[in-house]
Amino acid sequence: MAGAEIERLIALLAKLPGLGPRSARRAALRLIAKRETLLDPLARALAETSAHVRACGRCGNFDTTDPCSICADARRDHGLVCVIEDVADLWALERAGAHPGTYHVLGGVLSALGGVGPDDLAIGRLLRRVQEAAASDKPVREVILALSATVDGQTTAHYLSERLKPLGVAVSRLAHGVPVGGELDHLDDGTILTALRARRPA
Amino acid sequence: MAGAEIERLIALLAKLPGLGPRSARRAALRLIAKRETLLDPLARALAETSAHVRACGRCGNFDTTDPCSICADARRDHGLVCVIEDVADLWALERAGAHPGTYHVLGGVLSALGGVGPDDLAIGRLLRRVQEAAASDKPVREVILALSATVDGQTTAHYLSERLKPLGVAVSRLAHGVPVGGELDHLDDGTILTALRARRPA
Repeated sequence: MAGAEIERLIALLAKLPGLGPRSARRAALRLIAKRETLLDPLARALAETSAHVRACGRCGNFDTTDPCSICADARRDHGLVCVIEDVADLWALERAGAHPGTYHVLGGVLSALGGVGPDDLAIGRLLRRVQEAAASDKPVREVILALSATVDGQTTAHYLSERLKPLGVAVSRLAHGVPVGGELDHLDDGTILTALRARRPA
Repeated sequence: MAGAEIERLIALLAKLPGLGPRSARRAALRLIAKRETLLDPLARALAETSAHVRACGRCGNFDTTDPCSICADARRDHGLVCVIEDVADLWALERAGAHPGTYHVLGGVLSALGGVGPDDLAIGRLLRRVQEAAASDKPVREVILALSATVDGQTTAHYLSERLKPLGVAVSRLAHGVPVGGELDHLDDGTILTALRARRPA
């Protein structure tokens, strides 16, 4: 009904997270209606991203350089490595401006149900990275495990902790508790329980 | 933080309907992670759409041919023209398989508040189309006004009806059954089919 080109475009747009079949159709129509200001620039941006953006060989971040701009930044604390599940988490931490060190993207978490084992994640690369740094003049002092507060995330954190500690590196996790601005009444029981157990002197 | 290419990609993706800043970031990451199966095919589909898809000079539908495949289809009833606001509504009617005739895309509805007048829509082109058809061997017998059941939609339907009737063409509207305030593109096929079959003289 709408031509094979448009059908193909809609099918591809519908594969993007957040877009279903209906919103993919609306997106396709918006693109066609705004050819010069949206469709053509997006086609160019995708082509440039495809041509230039790569995963950093050290940390897994996406950038146009390898090593990425964070790994190549001498002002970063290369002795402090924050382990995250994916690049979206890296971006979230960078937006918060919270982490002065570098990163290591795991590519997911261990999952017995999902069939994700240690070899499916960038765990071996993390261990080699820490070992090689230990033999250099820039050893890794501390690895921060910034993984999701889910069963799989915490299982992965425990596994990584057991593998990292023998390498003589400090291992820490993000604190669990009440989110800043969060109201107790809106929190789940698990968060309240964890926050209460981890209470600190006022 | 993520390179100018990725930032530009995210900014463009965020302009698509249905995608906000956060989902645009997730979409960009999915695209980069699935370069060969998603990013490159989408870049190609956009380029092909840009190169080949045009608005039909007769009805305003988007297609790779002009006139579009519906206007060029001899099996269609060219005496029965369905007037819709935009191409999304045309697609909704085609999905329902409800309309054996051809279409005319207005490009919106009259809106006093929005500053949309008759000259901003494809109304003149519709009137000329009906007049030219009347002088040919394929006159337009009936114009179906399939406009949204909103104040602006019904105002537009009334205006079109007043302009079309002097041309000696029957004018009908979709039957009630379209929920007040509802948009065609949101309706299920059965509702569209019922409303079309129960259309009444305007």
